[in-house]
Amino acid sequence: MKQKLVAGIDIGGTNTTFGLVDAKGKILLKKSIATEKFPLPEELVVAVCKQIDKAFATLSKKYVLAGVGIGAPNGNYFNGCIVFAPNLKWKGIVPIAKMFEKTLKVKAVLTNDANAAAIGEMMFGGAKGMKDFIFVTLGTGLGSGIVVDGEMVYGHDGFAGELGHVIMFPEGRRCGCGRVGCLETYCSATGIATTYSLNKKEAKSVKHDSKFIYKKALKGDKNAIEAFNYTGDVLGLALANSVAYTSPQAIFLFGGLALAGNLIFKPTIESFERNLLNIYKNKIKILPSQLKENDAAILGAASLIWKELKNK
Amino acid sequence: MKQKLVAGIDIGGTNTTFGLVDAKGKILLKKSIATEKFPLPEELVVAVCKQIDKAFATLSKKYVLAGVGIGAPNGNYFNGCIVFAPNLKWKGIVPIAKMFEKTLKVKAVLTNDANAAAIGEMMFGGAKGMKDFIFVTLGTGLGSGIVVDGEMVYGHDGFAGELGHVIMFPEGRRCGCGRVGCLETYCSATGIATTYSLNKKEAKSVKHDSKFIYKKALKGDKNAIEAFNYTGDVLGLALANSVAYTSPQAIFLFGGLALAGNLIFKPTIESFERNLLNIYKNKIKILPSQLKENDAAILGAASLIWKELKNK
Repeated sequence: MKQKLVAGIDIGGTNTTFGLVDAKGKILLKKSIATEKFPLPEELVVAVCKQIDKAFATLSKKYVLAGVGIGAPNGNYFNGCIVFAPNLKWKGIVPIAKMFEKTLKVKAVLTNDANAAAIGEMMFGGAKGMKDFIFVTLGTGLGSGIVVDGEMVYGHDGFAGELGHVIMFPEGRRCGCGRVGCLETYCSATGIATTYSLNKKEAKSVKHDSKFIYKKALKGDKNAIEAFNYTGDVLGLALANSVAYTSPQAIFLFGGLALAGNLIFKPTIESFERNLLNIYKNKIKILPSQLKENDAAILGAASLIWKELKNK
Repeated sequence: MKQKLVAGIDIGGTNTTFGLVDAKGKILLKKSIATEKFPLPEELVVAVCKQIDKAFATLSKKYVLAGVGIGAPNGNYFNGCIVFAPNLKWKGIVPIAKMFEKTLKVKAVLTNDANAAAIGEMMFGGAKGMKDFIFVTLGTGLGSGIVVDGEMVYGHDGFAGELGHVIMFPEGRRCGCGRVGCLETYCSATGIATTYSLNKKEAKSVKHDSKFIYKKALKGDKNAIEAFNYTGDVLGLALANSVAYTSPQAIFLFGGLALAGNLIFKPTIESFERNLLNIYKNKIKILPSQLKENDAAILGAASLIWKELKNK
C-alpha cells in the first residue's frame, strides 16, 4: 500500500511556503515562492500545484497525496475562503480551498495561520496528548489558536481565537484594527519596539526591530530589559485572563519574541502566576513551542488534514 | 414504557432547591430546604432523597428516575466534588455526586450553578439549537458558562468559564477573590451598588441593593441611571473581549440585573458593538435568558442529565 503524504501550504503576505508531510511530521519537500508575484490567487494555485505534481512524479511509486492543508491570514475553516485579508493583495473573498481541490482532486482544508500552527503543536509538537491548551504566536502581531477537549475552537463563524485583539487598556495604544489598547499593540515584535522607544523617549519616527532590542538586552541594556519585562507583564495578565475562559493545561508561545527565552518567559510567568485566580495557580505551564520556526507553517497547515485522517 | 424524569438539584449557600423535570422541561415537583440546616452534606442528601422517593411513591406508576443533575458553587464536573466552596458551610472536598448515586442508584452529574444554567438555556431556553454561545449570570457575583460546538467548556480541570474573574482594570476595585479589578466587582448586583455609592460620593458603610437602584432609575434618578450605564459600559467591553476567544452566536444575560431590561441591555449592547473587532460587528446578539428566574436552577441542574440522555 502506498504511504500517505499531505501537502501543507502556508500563504503569507510576502511568501507562500509549502511542502509534503508524512504521518510522523517529516517534511519531504519544502518550497517557497513570492506571494506578491501572483496578482490572482488562481495563478498562485497553479504554480504551487505544478511543484507538487512535479515532486510526486518522482515520489509517486511509494506515496499518494491524501489532502491539502492551508494556513492563511483570515482563512475561514467553515467555508474554505480567505476573507478580506489586509496583508494580501487579493481583495474580497477568495475560495482558496476549492481552488486547490479542483486542481489536485483531493480534500483541502483552510484555517488561519495561528490555528494551523496550534494544530501542528498538537499533532507534532509539545502539545501531543494535550486536550486543552492555548497557542500564541508573537510575530509582527499576536495570533492565537485555542484547543478545547482536543478540538480547535472555531466558533460560530470560524473566527474564534483572536487574542491579539482583546482590549487590555481602553485608553491604550492605537491598533491597526482601528481600535485602541489591543493586546498585540503591546505583546508582539511591533509592541516591544514601541515600548522600547517610549522608554527611551524617542521620536515616533524612530523604528527599531525586536532583534535589535533582544541583542541590546543580552548586553544588559536597561531600557531593552525593561521593554521585555513590560511586554511579559502585559502578556502574563492577558494569559491569566485567558485561563478564566477555557482553563487550559498549558499555553505555548511561538514566534520571534518567544525565541528570546528567559528574557520574555520569566516576566511573563511571574505576571501570569500573580494575576491568576487562586483555583488556577501553579497548575498551568507556559511553554515554548516545540515546532521549529522554519517548519511550523508547513507542519501546521499539513496537520489540518493529518488530524482528520487520524481521527477516523 | 415508563416516562423518564430527571431530578434537578441546586445547592446554594442559603437554600437547596430541587425538583423533577421531564424531557420537555416541565417541572413536576419543586421543593426548597435550608442548606444551612445540615451541618454535614450526607444529611442534606438524605433529606433530599427522602422527598424524591416520596414523590415517586405517587408518580412511579407512570415515571422512572433516569438520573440526578446537581448544580453547586465550585462544583467540578470531572470528579463530581464540591471543592472548597467559600459560601457553603461544608469545608474541603465533598463528593456530592457519589453520595446521590449511592442513595438513589442512578447516575449523578455535577457542575457549577452557572454552567448548569447555561446547559438549561441550551436544552429548554433561548439557546435551543445554538452550538456556540456564552451564558452570563448577573447575581451577587458574575458567573458564566461557555458552550463551544454544542458542548460545555470545562477545560483541563473542570473550572473553565470564570468570566467574573477576568481582570478588567489592573488598578481597579478590590475583589472577594483577593485580587483587584475583576469583572464581577463592576458587573453584578454588588458592583452596581458600589458604582452608585461612588457616584453619590457616599461613605463606604452605606449599602444599597440593586433593586433600590433599579427603582430609582425607573423614576429618572440621574445617579441611578448613570450606575446602569457604567455597568453596561464595562460589561459590553468584557463581552466584546469574550467574543475574541470563542466567537459565539449569542450571549445570554441572566439574573437580577438582567431583569432591568433596557436599563442594562441598552448600554451593554452599545459598548459591546463599539468595542467589537470589525469581523464580529453586528453579528452577535446579546439576549435576555429565556429561563424563568425561579425555575432556572432546577431546570439547569436537570438538563445536565437530559443533555446526556438526548445525545445518546
